Parts: sequence; structure tokens; C-alpha cells
Amino acid sequence: MDVKLLTHTPEPDRVVATAARLCYSPRAAEEVWEGFSPEKQAEFITKLSSYGHYSPFEHVSFTLAIAGVSRSLSHQLVRHRIASYSQRSQRYINEGTFQVVVPPTVAGDLAAQEEFDRIMGQIHEAYDRLIKLGIPQEDARYLLPNACQTQLIMTMNARSLLHFFALRCCRRAQWEIRELAWKVRSEVMKAAPLLFRESGPPCLVRGECPEGAMGCGEPYKKAEVEADHGVA
Amino acid sequence: MDVKLLTHTPEPDRVVATAARLCYSPRAAEEVWEGFSPEKQAEFITKLSSYGHYSPFEHVSFTLAIAGVSRSLSHQLVRHRIASYSQRSQRYINEGTFQVVVPPTVAGDLAAQEEFDRIMGQIHEAYDRLIKLGIPQEDARYLLPNACQTQLIMTMNARSLLHFFALRCCRRAQWEIRELAWKVRSEVMKAAPLLFRESGPPCLVRGECPEGAMGCGEPYKKAEVEADHGVA
Amino acid sequence: MDVKLLTHTPEPDRVVATAARLCYSPRAAEEVWEGFSPEKQAEFITKLSSYGHYSPFEHVSFTLAIAGVSRSLSHQLVRHRIASYSQRSQRYINEGTFQVVVPPTVAGDLAAQEEFDRIMGQIHEAYDRLIKLGIPQEDARYLLPNACQTQLIMTMNARSLLHFFALRCCRRAQWEIRELAWKVRSEVMKAAPLLFRESGPPCLVRGECPEGAMGCGEPYKKAEVEADHGVA
Amino acid sequence: MDVKLLTHTPEPDRVVATAARLCYSPRAAEEVWEGFSPEKQAEFITKLSSYGHYSPFEHVSFTLAIAGVSRSLSHQLVRHRIASYSQRSQRYINEGTFQVVVPPTVAGDLAAQEEFDRIMGQIHEAYDRLIKLGIPQEDARYLLPNACQTQLIMTMNARSLLHFFALRCCRRAQWEIRELAWKVRSEVMKAAPLLFRESGPPCLVRGECPEGAMGCGEPYKKAEVEADHGVA
Repeated sequence: MDVKLLTHTPEPDRVVATAARLCYSPRAAEEVWEGFSPEKQAEFITKLSSYGHYSPFEHVSFTLAIAGVSRSLSHQLVRHRIASYSQRSQRYINEGTFQVVVPPTVAGDLAAQEEFDRIMGQIHEAYDRLIKLGIPQEDARYLLPNACQTQLIMTMNARSLLHFFALRCCRRAQWEIRELAWKVRSEVMKAAPLLFRESGPPCLVRGECPEGAMGCGEPYKKAEVEADHGVA
Repeated sequence: MDVKLLTHTPEPDRVVATAARLCYSPRAAEEVWEGFSPEKQAEFITKLSSYGHYSPFEHVSFTLAIAGVSRSLSHQLVRHRIASYSQRSQRYINEGTFQVVVPPTVAGDLAAQEEFDRIMGQIHEAYDRLIKLGIPQEDARYLLPNACQTQLIMTMNARSLLHFFALRCCRRAQWEIRELAWKVRSEVMKAAPLLFRESGPPCLVRGECPEGAMGCGEPYKKAEVEADHGVA
Repeated sequence: MDVKLLTHTPEPDRVVATAARLCYSPRAAEEVWEGFSPEKQAEFITKLSSYGHYSPFEHVSFTLAIAGVSRSLSHQLVRHRIASYSQRSQRYINEGTFQVVVPPTVAGDLAAQEEFDRIMGQIHEAYDRLIKLGIPQEDARYLLPNACQTQLIMTMNARSLLHFFALRCCRRAQWEIRELAWKVRSEVMKAAPLLFRESGPPCLVRGECPEGAMGCGEPYKKAEVEADHGVA
Repeated sequence: MDVKLLTHTPEPDRVVATAARLCYSPRAAEEVWEGFSPEKQAEFITKLSSYGHYSPFEHVSFTLAIAGVSRSLSHQLVRHRIASYSQRSQRYINEGTFQVVVPPTVAGDLAAQEEFDRIMGQIHEAYDRLIKLGIPQEDARYLLPNACQTQLIMTMNARSLLHFFALRCCRRAQWEIRELAWKVRSEVMKAAPLLFRESGPPCLVRGECPEGAMGCGEPYKKAEVEADHGVA
């Protein structure tokens, strides 16, 4: 899996803090914008986070390139509707050399890995034969597996990202989209550490799980997150 | 493919016409609602359609059960963001007896159909073996094909449906989601013929194609639509 | 203020429970739909609420007529973006006989009420004079006050309503939209008591306030809600 | 009215073109991104516009400061739901020195202007008196007029902006929001001339009006637009 922040709204802290301050200030937006010291910005953003006032976070968006993920993942991902996606098309691209995502449970079991490799080889061959028989790519792809790697460009604003992290950094999310969520979080934290300081699963951020009886029973701990993802 | 309208906002014409009329009328909403004859409602809706004023169409929504469609289709479908979906989960359901969608180009070619059947049989066996090896369903599914049948409940409001029909009834949409779009259209037309009288691909509705050089060059004709889908 | 439920998706419990169950059941949607006893539906909905799994709640929507509210309120209301609105137009309707919403703080102070009445009378006259001078309605309305009554038809799905109640039933919301929120809640609870049983401000529903230092310090109590709104 | 582009996604052409190309290219997103010459980008964007394929346009967003507009305008503006807004609050800011927007029809008629000025003066005084009587700002504002100036920060992506221009640059939009739409267009065209080259009302862009019998009958002409807004 490869996740890279391609671009984002410049000066994200300034944008969010200015938008928030404008609501309460008689001064002109440009004046607020110009005279806003980084310290004051930080103070504002910390307050917004602590009050749960996230609407100003919508003004900054982040565009990421995501590659080496499965179509299982992308089908889950695009269910997040407050976001924009452009995805590699299996209709218009010949997938004769498709690569696959191997689940860790499969990779950790010799017999399973063998089985997995065999069937992937067979699917490769079948795809090629259908193409040779003149079946269009958009139809030959009906036999391609969920494991098939895809590639996307995704844009989400900071508020939508916070929601994405709350749901998908959670242990109850599938391992692959969970891995994606933590990687996206690491990427956007480089660009806007303050905005995402209080981001992640509710167990980490608020110290409690909203899923009640459905919860996993293993809340994340700051130390674990720091060890695994470099940033807490 | 099986498409069935489960339920919808009652009296869709009355709802849309009342909402539209309210904007221009000094009378109370309830009074407008009560005194609205079907003829007057029809007149209003016809006008709204001809002016392209579709925001009142948002007040009515349609809930459909969709079955026997592929995961290729569902991945395309859920990209329509102004809608709600609940979908059969491959994480929580054992797919040992999965059924498949066969593309017409495959079904129309003996060699291709044989190839398709063989690989589907092999995938079935591989899936079962992974399950037996203790691989969780959510990971075993990585080898399931796009052809795998899924089931959804989808809710869309009438305005979003009009957009869906404009894009997906088009010949440039893939055959499967195009078939779905026309079937959904037939279903909702039973409940709200007036709202969807001017629906479908732009070639049919407006007599022109917005895709310019990318267009298919074969505009739909009313007679063809009537023959194929019962309603024009 | 007058709030009336005009219509809604029929059998809301059945719709939500069927959509939720479909995700985990190998059975066909129609079969789930048909065989779903009210008791089982209730069990499902109670679980969904306790886990915070609200996406199936999106499949049912509620259409309300709202009258006798101010333009201050409607400007706040339409900021809720996952909803549909049709509103009485000040461009197309002559507002010569506009009525007003009087804030309780004004109504409770004789001098303030007098001042308020006087200025409203003056605005009335000024509006009429501008109209007589040939100024178009859409421009004469520039002097109309926020207090001016408006009328809307609003459609929201149950998930969006839960969010609306969480924000606007809160004591920190302005008194007018808070009154609206509680009235909308009473209306939709008549149609779908189960879906909205755990609805309202976080202090009432979860026993805690997410606004931290910005909180009002006076959490709602069930008894108070029941006394004021008939339903807890 | 003062409209200023505060910030936007950097390199908007590159972002849109890369997102579009990714769908059809077997190459990695980063590779597409790096190797994309401005000429090739322009070619792609021109094609996308001509086909009406606007989804890649969603990846770039624009943040604008808007001041000196009326609350009539802002109430219309925030109806555009695929956007983010932060607005000067009349609850939290003392509006004792509120300024107003004067409609051109009023400014162009001596008697109307006099009437307008008189009533604005009276409203000023009444607002001050209510405040002095201890009425909270959020309630005193009930007598503030639609003409009252407000200030917003608005973020919209390029696709949503195209829709905004199509509706609000139109002569049937009210003069004030039409003026805003053209000014926003001028601002974003400085940053992304290619993306917005084919933007504006349908009469200008496509040479036809979708409103049929409701149309204004006076289609915009390139020369007029260039004369009035500097860019066609």
C-alpha cells in the first residue's frame, strides 16, 4: 500500500482559524487573515477541537494518491460520500498484469498462501484467454478478484477526514482500510499537525467507545499508536 | 437482476407540487396541500420539468431492493453520493454458495462461457479451502470475483434519480448498470409517472448529447425505449 | 410557530430494520422485508441505536410544513445541508402584510415590546411606500426585518434528523430554532417512536456534553423533557 | 461588495488533469503527476470540459472572503449545499454600527432612497434602544433588515462553482447574488483560467437556455461579458 499526500490547501491552520474567528469578530476577513499569529491560530484550533466545533475544518482539503490497495478496500472507501474520488478504471485499462493484495492471514499460512497463489495464477490465465477470445475488457474483468490492486486519487476536507479516522482507524474496521486510515492520518499530520492532533478512533481521542456491546474491548493506547505510526 | 420498489414517499405528485407552489404562494402549506387537485398538481409538475426546476423533486424518495447484480455494478452504483445504501456484506456472510453475473458477451460465446464457468468453479473451491484452513470470511473474499452477486437496498430522491437516469441509462454506461437504471426507472414510473415522464438519457429527453465527440452516435428513440422498457 | 408532519416514508421501522438486516443476512431483501415481525424490528432498531450504527436510518425521510418562524431561524435552518427545503419567496410574494416573530425577551419587557411594535409598524409603512414608488418586491424586501415570518417545507432523513436534534435541541442553540427542533422531534416521534427514542441533545441521550468548557452547565433531565414536550 | 480569493488548491490544472488521467492510465499516480506538461494538462482539461466530465474538477477547491453583501444574499448563497461557509454571527457580534446594501433600484430613485435611509436610521435607533433595555444581541437582531451587511468565508470545489455560475450568473438570479457570482468567477479565473473558461450561464456556455418559457430572452454575449467582467 502506498499513500502520498499530493497537495492540500496552503496554510491550513490559518484558513481554519480565520474562518472560525470571522464568526465572532467585527473585523474584516482579510484583516483577520493577515494579522493572525501562528500562536493565536494554534490557540483557536485547540479550542475548536475541544468544543467539537468542526465546521471551519471544512475549508481545508487534502488530495492523496492511494495505490496498491484492493478493490475490496476501494468499494468500502467510496462509501464515504463527503469526498471526491478518481479511480483507475477496469473498463478502460487492460488488467492482464494485475497485481494483488494478499491478506496477512493468508500470508501467514503456508497452505493458504499456496492456494491463494494458485487461484490468482488461474484467474490471470482466464482473463487473458477471455481477452484473446475478443471479450471486451469491461466484461473480462468480471472474473477479476477483489484482491486486484487499484489506484485512486482522493480529496477530503479536514472535517470529513476526522470522521473517516474515527470510523476506519478503529479495530473493528477491516485491517486493510484500517491500515489506509492510519497512513492517511500520518500523511495529513505532516501538513497540518494541529488540525489532526485529536484524531483517530474514539477510544484514543475521547477515551471511550461509542459501539457499546459491539466494541472490540481493546482500546488503543497513545504509546501503541506512537510506536506503530510515528505520531500519537 | 431483480429490482423492486419496496416503498416510497406517499402521494409523490402532491408533495412535489405543494413544495413548489409554497415558494410563490401567500397561502399556508397545509391549505396548499389540502386543496391541490390532481390536475393542478400535474400542471405544476409539467411546468417544473420544462423549466428544469428540480429542487422540489428532492422531497420524495424511493427505496428499492436490488438483487442479482455484480460487485462491479455495486462499486459503480455507490459512487452516486446523494443516495443511501445498505449492502450485503462479504465480511459477515459466508459466500460459499456465491452466484455470479455472466456478461452477455461471455454468454454469447461458447468458448468464453466455458472458460468463465471453469474459473468460477475453481474460485468456489479455492474459497471453500481457505475457509476450511481457518481464513476469516473477510479475507477469503479477496479471491471472490467482480461477477459475484450482491444485494442492496438503495434510497434516492427523485432529483437524484433523474441525474442517475441521465448518466446511467446512457449507452456509454456499462450494460449492467444501464440495465439497472432502466429497471429502476420502470419501477419508479409506476409510482410517480409524472415526475419521471421526462427522464432518461439526454438524447431521449432533450434530443441532444452533452458528451460531444465522446457520444455514442446512436441516440435513443422513444419507440425503442417503449418496446424495451414498456414505458417511454 | 406551527410544525406539522405532512408525510413520511411508510413503515419506517420495517424499512430501517430490513436495510440493516440485509447487510448480515444471506436471505433475499423481499423475504427479510415480508417476514419481519414488529418485535424483531424493534429489537434490531434498539441494537442499531446502542451501537451508533445509523446508516440504515437514512432510508426513511420525513417531510414537514414549518410556518410562523422568523427569517433568522430559516437562515440557520438551511445550513443543515443533508436535507431539502422549499421556502416562501420574498422575491415573488408581496410581503405587505408580513407578520413577525417576537422574541420572548422582548415580549417580556413592556418598553422593549413597545419599541419593537413601533419599528415594525414603521417598516410596514416603508415597505408599502417603496412598493408604491415602483420598487420591485425583491428590492423592497431589503428593509424587511429578520423577525419577518416565513414558511418552509423541509424533508430530512432520520439520520440527519438525529444530528439536527443533537445540535438544535441543545440549550446553546437559539431559543427559536431550539423550539423548532423539539417540535419537529415531537412530530416525527408520533410516526416513528422507536427510531427517535434516543434522540435529542447529548446531555439527554448520552449523559454528557461534547462542548466541554463551552457547555451550558444545565443538562436536560428526562422529567423536564417529558413535562415540556410530552415525550422523553 | 468585496470578493477576494484567499487561497486555493495549488496547481489546480495539474490536480484535475492528473485525477482524470489516472482513470485511464496504467501508470502510477505520482508518475502521471510528475511528468505532466502544462500543454498536456491543458489538452486534458479542454477535453473534460467538452465532454462534460466534471468529476475530476472536484479535487480542487477555492476559498473566498466575501464582504459587503446583504443577509438576503447570504440566505440564498448558503442554499448551495456542496460548499462550506463560515459567517459573521448576529448572535455574537453587536450590530450597533451595521451597514447596509442599497439595491440599485432604490439608489436610482430619490424618493425611494430617502425612504430607505429614513427607515434604516430608525432601525439603527431601535436596535440600540433594545440593547440598552438589556435585550440580548441575538434577540435585538430580530429587527435588523435583510439589507444588513454580512461577511462570509466560503469554500467551493471547481465542479460546485461551475454549477453555482450556471445558476447565479443568470439574469433570472437576483442582481446581488448575480454580481457576486460574476465576481467570484473573475477571482477564480485568475487562479485557474482553464478550468473556468467554459463557465457561466448556459446561454453563454452552451448557447441555449434550459428554462424554456421562463427564460429571460436576453442571452449573454461574449462581448458584453468581456466588457463587464474583464474576462469572457
